[in-house]
Amino acid sequence: MAANLPNMRSIRRVMGVDPGLTRCGIGVVDGYPGLARLVGVDVLHTPADAELGDRLAALEDGLVQWLDRAAPDVVAVERVFSQHNVRTVMGTAQAGAVALLVAARRGVPVVWHTPSEVKAAVTGQGRAGKDQVAFMVRRLLRAPGLAAPADATDALALAICQLWRGAAMARLAAGGAR
Amino acid sequence: MAANLPNMRSIRRVMGVDPGLTRCGIGVVDGYPGLARLVGVDVLHTPADAELGDRLAALEDGLVQWLDRAAPDVVAVERVFSQHNVRTVMGTAQAGAVALLVAARRGVPVVWHTPSEVKAAVTGQGRAGKDQVAFMVRRLLRAPGLAAPADATDALALAICQLWRGAAMARLAAGGAR
Repeated sequence: MAANLPNMRSIRRVMGVDPGLTRCGIGVVDGYPGLARLVGVDVLHTPADAELGDRLAALEDGLVQWLDRAAPDVVAVERVFSQHNVRTVMGTAQAGAVALLVAARRGVPVVWHTPSEVKAAVTGQGRAGKDQVAFMVRRLLRAPGLAAPADATDALALAICQLWRGAAMARLAAGGAR
Repeated sequence: MAANLPNMRSIRRVMGVDPGLTRCGIGVVDGYPGLARLVGVDVLHTPADAELGDRLAALEDGLVQWLDRAAPDVVAVERVFSQHNVRTVMGTAQAGAVALLVAARRGVPVVWHTPSEVKAAVTGQGRAGKDQVAFMVRRLLRAPGLAAPADATDALALAICQLWRGAAMARLAAGGAR
């Protein structure tokens, strides 16, 4: 049925952000449910021995460059519900706040996905391991040789998750059949 | 002894920030150990039903206005070590990140104090209650009629704590007697 063919207008660009102070993963993909193309990938680093404010400012600079360069339709950020280490939660929250802030300043909508939503979207299993997520990201993007650390493949998985789920949620919101 | 007289050059202006998304307390004081003068106090509100990114952007606007207007020598922020509610920790961390970011962008140093350090500085007791902190803030600032909510008096207490402790830490760092 024609209604099931992907429409060119439905192609979206998503920038996934795996927030972190020491390593912040960035992954940009284009596509629609079932097809994702790699646009760009990066890991922003800030030195652990620098002042926290300077680290956040450096992170802001990097995120602004990526937002302006990639011009995504939407930014997808990992939603952290609970972690054992309060220090890690704080760093993740602080880095995530900067991503949110720069996206809001540019009028780019931000969506959130939990780690299990992301894992389920790319592997079919909400408790998949890091290696399996990285393997499936490379397969889905048809980039088997992609050299990228886990923070980067996690950000790409977030972006792919939004391509898949975002469209499904939009259909549900519009009252369409699934 | 002359060495114990406060030196005009030691007068510092501190802006205390009690970070929060729904209510962010701001308190600015001038002084030196033993004397604190109220400069300004405010609570920044952001609507709980707004997008998180827009809330952070509104908070940034308010903090920038206060930083530019008050021109503090240093910003003191509450250091959160642990809270039971992860959602509250995240909001505090996100709001604190914005305060850090805007201070770093303007080259204003940021210092951290734990709630118990703040309580001990203004009441002599690290486990003092909110009412006791608010009472002592009004007494120390000689502003018994100050109408300000707890978020604002907490921010003032943070600023006073930095006036007291900051000088002591600077003396210790310089190798002087306590």
